[in-house]
Amino acid sequence: MTAPAGPTPPVERAMRRALEASVAVHGATSPNPPVGAVVLDAAGEIVGVGATAPAGGPHAEVVALRQAGERARGGTAVVTLEPCAHHGRTPPCAEALLGAGIAAVHVAVADPNPLAAGGAEVLRRAGVEVTVGTLADSVAAGPLRAWLHAVRAGRPHVTWKLAATLDGRSAAADGTSRWITGPEARAEVHEFRSHVDAIVVGTGTALADDPALTARYPDGTDRERQPLRVVVGHSDIRPGSRLDAPDVLHLRTHSPDDVLKALTDRGAVDVLLEGGPRLAGAFLAANRVDRVLAYLAPALLGAGPAALADAGVGTIAGIRRLQVDTVRTVGGDVLVDARPAAG
Amino acid sequence: MTAPAGPTPPVERAMRRALEASVAVHGATSPNPPVGAVVLDAAGEIVGVGATAPAGGPHAEVVALRQAGERARGGTAVVTLEPCAHHGRTPPCAEALLGAGIAAVHVAVADPNPLAAGGAEVLRRAGVEVTVGTLADSVAAGPLRAWLHAVRAGRPHVTWKLAATLDGRSAAADGTSRWITGPEARAEVHEFRSHVDAIVVGTGTALADDPALTARYPDGTDRERQPLRVVVGHSDIRPGSRLDAPDVLHLRTHSPDDVLKALTDRGAVDVLLEGGPRLAGAFLAANRVDRVLAYLAPALLGAGPAALADAGVGTIAGIRRLQVDTVRTVGGDVLVDARPAAG
Repeated sequence: MTAPAGPTPPVERAMRRALEASVAVHGATSPNPPVGAVVLDAAGEIVGVGATAPAGGPHAEVVALRQAGERARGGTAVVTLEPCAHHGRTPPCAEALLGAGIAAVHVAVADPNPLAAGGAEVLRRAGVEVTVGTLADSVAAGPLRAWLHAVRAGRPHVTWKLAATLDGRSAAADGTSRWITGPEARAEVHEFRSHVDAIVVGTGTALADDPALTARYPDGTDRERQPLRVVVGHSDIRPGSRLDAPDVLHLRTHSPDDVLKALTDRGAVDVLLEGGPRLAGAFLAANRVDRVLAYLAPALLGAGPAALADAGVGTIAGIRRLQVDTVRTVGGDVLVDARPAAG
Repeated sequence: MTAPAGPTPPVERAMRRALEASVAVHGATSPNPPVGAVVLDAAGEIVGVGATAPAGGPHAEVVALRQAGERARGGTAVVTLEPCAHHGRTPPCAEALLGAGIAAVHVAVADPNPLAAGGAEVLRRAGVEVTVGTLADSVAAGPLRAWLHAVRAGRPHVTWKLAATLDGRSAAADGTSRWITGPEARAEVHEFRSHVDAIVVGTGTALADDPALTARYPDGTDRERQPLRVVVGHSDIRPGSRLDAPDVLHLRTHSPDDVLKALTDRGAVDVLLEGGPRLAGAFLAANRVDRVLAYLAPALLGAGPAALADAGVGTIAGIRRLQVDTVRTVGGDVLVDARPAAG
């Protein structure tokens, strides 16, 4: 049995492959994390690739081990998240790796979940060489981001998406708003929707825009994965509107924490907040926004509803600072992807 | 005498050097254009570099020719703008180039000014090989941009600079606004100010912020070049305020064209509009904004004055579309540099 001494190019390549596998199931695994796993045989050849199956189904490691079969013996497992050590709906993955005769395990991110953690320790005690941290930053910023946040913060990860002009308007003075951003930006948002567990809007937006809140392809057809649709506020949903449907969750509250509690109870860890301005303001004021996706159209209105209102800031010292993760153009628009500034 | 057959790497290098020379005088030449010129001897070696001197002084070609002296004979001149053919305050540069025995001339941008144009034709008739278009896009986007626009449009080039949060606010609810953008963005604006002919604000901004409107170094000291300071509106400037000074131009009008006419009369071709929101709205509504520099702080306010108001847009069909030239981060902020979309 030979085990690599540490992260090597083949292991990094395998971790990228595992990350890709996890991207493919992003949005389909909650409340379980979207994990990817790759098994290399003793010679370093990829003999198995797996990703988390929907809850109740096998974890990524087990899928990859099944594919590898006997070739896993003496080989290496490369996993985006530390293998679990607890008996949940499935037996622990650490045991499965030992049973398959894996000699070395490379993990990107340690499991912050106290219930499931300990897989690395179990493996080490059994004589398996375990390395933690391979491509950790890329993996933590990828499909696992929301789940890692939810475990650490005890509530779902909230992304606030806004589409506005350079002067911060989300509609013209008469309320018309189709379309401020271009088709490329809208397509990205629909793709993003397909990976989250829930989309949340306020009743004001539901009444004003009559949105479908579905994840669609550019041709308008529904994507395979649809998030839970949630409307927040005390007003009734208009009968016959697109959100007047049995599978829409209507939460009669204005409290962000009430909303997040109700979503946690439904297994949601990744939530997309799409407006309106007052609901977004309430989430910001309560420090319940973890990521801001600002799609800014290079356009000006000079009047009309602002994208954000009532965030609890009265003077410049209270400004809500963000730090930019990435800025890029999307079609003719600009995307600023940011998160609350530390401290 | 040998003349290069067309743009070659040495000529492109020389044009970049000429462009650099013009950057150094950007802001010091109005109403003349900031031109750069390089003279290569017959062997292709740089023997002279020049830029436009302040109005009444020699043009770039003459400065470069003087430096080259006899070594210009049989050589090549590389100039960012077509040499002039008219007798203005100085004799035509085309004659100077012929007198120095220049064999070939490379020009980036043809002169759109009907009074001064024709230099290329004069040179060609005298047997000089003339090439137009070398690095034309880079040069036209550089220090010549405002002057070229002013010649073509018959009015100064107007850059509207705004500093706002991602939700389009330029101050908090109580009016406080220092500082929304970071020191790097503010330093860029001060550098930009030093290249323009005039800075324009409305009386509302003058009263609310008491700005100095000077071009300063990061340590607060004044830069060598200071633009004309202009306040627009019917209200009086408060006695004792920073803009209550003999060299401040107060234009008691709300008409963008009145403002631009008054500035044209004072030789301005490059104007920086810094607010407030209503003055910017008036310029936009009149199609008198040629460039938008949006410094966006990754921050949110949710209340407070908008960066833009009353731009004459009532419904989404009237939205003022821009096209993005560049997007980049400046310190922790995002700069969107855009111009009105064609058509």
